[in-house]
Amino acid sequence: MASVTVYGTPLSPAVSRVLACLFEKDVDFKLAPVDMAKGQHKSPDFLKLQPFGQVPAFQDELTTVFESRAICKYICNKYPEKGNQTLMGGRDGGLLAQTSVDQWLEAEGQSFNPPSSALVFQLAFAPMFGFKQDPAAIEQNEAKLANVLDVYDRRLGESKFLAGDDFTLADLAHLPNGHILVSKNEDLFMSRKNVGRWWVEISARPAWKKVVEMQNAPLG
Amino acid sequence: MASVTVYGTPLSPAVSRVLACLFEKDVDFKLAPVDMAKGQHKSPDFLKLQPFGQVPAFQDELTTVFESRAICKYICNKYPEKGNQTLMGGRDGGLLAQTSVDQWLEAEGQSFNPPSSALVFQLAFAPMFGFKQDPAAIEQNEAKLANVLDVYDRRLGESKFLAGDDFTLADLAHLPNGHILVSKNEDLFMSRKNVGRWWVEISARPAWKKVVEMQNAPLG
Repeated sequence: MASVTVYGTPLSPAVSRVLACLFEKDVDFKLAPVDMAKGQHKSPDFLKLQPFGQVPAFQDELTTVFESRAICKYICNKYPEKGNQTLMGGRDGGLLAQTSVDQWLEAEGQSFNPPSSALVFQLAFAPMFGFKQDPAAIEQNEAKLANVLDVYDRRLGESKFLAGDDFTLADLAHLPNGHILVSKNEDLFMSRKNVGRWWVEISARPAWKKVVEMQNAPLG
Repeated sequence: MASVTVYGTPLSPAVSRVLACLFEKDVDFKLAPVDMAKGQHKSPDFLKLQPFGQVPAFQDELTTVFESRAICKYICNKYPEKGNQTLMGGRDGGLLAQTSVDQWLEAEGQSFNPPSSALVFQLAFAPMFGFKQDPAAIEQNEAKLANVLDVYDRRLGESKFLAGDDFTLADLAHLPNGHILVSKNEDLFMSRKNVGRWWVEISARPAWKKVVEMQNAPLG
């Protein structure tokens, strides 16, 4: 029986980031739905798992962890012998490789995530949930994201993946928002030669394809 | 001679986060100013150190690192025997302690940093640089930050510091924006019993006082 439980829906980008890591690491898990329409994410029991009342929450036997990127690091550190061995720092695993993952994962969290999450909301979730789109917010965040992707394009002209020669958590963290954005505005990624090459490669990983299958499965 | 160089001004919150870590770890460094008014942060030489053209950039002999939180982790991992030994996970240093630091440091980066940085811009930097303040942005971000600080207040009712019994990077990362916000609107922090107790303790650390001295020193 799986010792790991992920609370939330695979349609949430942060939840799907954790699922991608679990599939890469070949760690069994069960998914526990959280009924956000009924406010279950703000219930006292859920707040014990995730004090901000957000998904995902994550439990591994008696250990609870929150924040998707911190959960991914926990999974890699807890199960070093399982699945993909290079997610935390490539084949050599030394301080420089680990630091490179840290800095590009932090770039994702601080530079890529804010405009890409704003765009995911505007382009995908607003229409889905009946909110009005804000054209000014779309334009402003597309411009911010374009600047970030220009930096990525230069970096990916020098190395195969963001942190170096291996696919790592720094790449993986981009999959959830990237997947939605490419479905809405492919040019943002594909018009940039190196970003396009990188995106085709990372989005074709079997672990990510399993997450997309879960997203596309009928609810229930 | 110091092997570590930090590029930027201590007035930048991200630069001062790295300086606080260096003082905690008792690691010698030199500070190299970056003339942002002259666009030095966008010069080809600087972009080799920091591809986004932001401060801080950081160099330790031949190693360059960017993103303030990744730089702090590098400093702790590179100099484990120096200064404060518990910044990365408390006295036991095991996986659970390290994961607790990771999750609260990520909470700082994802939940505390966006509204607090927006407020720092509005309340401190906008008047300093002659931009007009946006009352709606101030109100919106104060409300967002209040929600985050309510979560912190519950957490800090259970443990002395965010990640547990020891002062760690998760606390340290809050010092730069916290210092500016408390000078502009003390109530945000001090009206909450546990956040107030925590703030008084972490802001009194000798390492942070050295950073504030640098911030207050005449330029030159």
